[in-house]
Amino acid sequence: MKFCSNCGSNNIEHKIPDGDNRLRHCCLDCGTIFYENPKIVAGCIAQWQDKILLCKRAIEPRYGAWTLPAGFMENHETIQHAAARETFEEATARASNLELFAVYNLPHISQVYMMFTADIEDGKARSGIESLETQFVEEHQIPWNDLAFPIINETLELYFEDRKRGKFSLHVGEITRKPDRTIHKVRY
Amino acid sequence: MKFCSNCGSNNIEHKIPDGDNRLRHCCLDCGTIFYENPKIVAGCIAQWQDKILLCKRAIEPRYGAWTLPAGFMENHETIQHAAARETFEEATARASNLELFAVYNLPHISQVYMMFTADIEDGKARSGIESLETQFVEEHQIPWNDLAFPIINETLELYFEDRKRGKFSLHVGEITRKPDRTIHKVRY
Repeated sequence: MKFCSNCGSNNIEHKIPDGDNRLRHCCLDCGTIFYENPKIVAGCIAQWQDKILLCKRAIEPRYGAWTLPAGFMENHETIQHAAARETFEEATARASNLELFAVYNLPHISQVYMMFTADIEDGKARSGIESLETQFVEEHQIPWNDLAFPIINETLELYFEDRKRGKFSLHVGEITRKPDRTIHKVRY
Repeated sequence: MKFCSNCGSNNIEHKIPDGDNRLRHCCLDCGTIFYENPKIVAGCIAQWQDKILLCKRAIEPRYGAWTLPAGFMENHETIQHAAARETFEEATARASNLELFAVYNLPHISQVYMMFTADIEDGKARSGIESLETQFVEEHQIPWNDLAFPIINETLELYFEDRKRGKFSLHVGEITRKPDRTIHKVRY
């Protein structure tokens, strides 16, 4: 942040405002304080028969890697709507019966992932603009070493564990990437 | 948004960028697109013996009304940490054993509430800077008509319903305030 979006001043300081306990961008001219908060990423484990829907990313980061349809929740929508919207945008697939499955903290990048199980009742999918390819795959076809993000591996591992048990339940946890780039995973 | 926080220009237009489908603030000089996303509010139903912790708000909105300790999640923390931090900031109480209890969409104000059951093991609480007063109350002492927000009523109703059943489970839903100011509540 180089300029104040309220008054246009470049007299911006990164400091702890009076009565606060965190660094914020503050405009020293008009007094506006700029808060930044974590973002929600919402997505689906979209099921059809015994298969689930994967998308091959057509965008950075991780261009060409496989992922579950998911993306940033927008203002004025629900998490469920965001997850279904992303499934439609990335795979032109209509998700229904959404059930909250995983709530994961990614504090190193200030994101909270909220993943839902869902059904694609007509089994239809084709690439949206953000995907090179979409596929419904069985468990043995999951490209475990070519998934886009650790949270995608974790969500799919939890999903197939639950499916073997015959019961889906809510999973809450945390994935962090340490400064040395190692991944640290906690299931609460 | 009146000025671009990247280049200081006031040549800002609220328009749908190429390849997007939503209105964003866009700088026509440097090309920066400004995204806004929903915020997470995290808080606790903080239990001690058969009582739960309420705080009387010392800040607007709803100055003087009673609430559960809750507030905006900050960057680089987990939801659980945010809920415990807010409980400490508002009531100087140390929350432990946090379990996710309610995930509620408030799309009209672009917020997602994530409320946890938690224990205050030592039963200690006193007002933080954002509270006029704190109290551990029994169910019959809840000031139902003097709670700060509909989501607080809803969370407490769900909590006491579950407590009577002897089993806490996750609740997912939505509260919206319609343009005519009526409250619309959905339990998914």
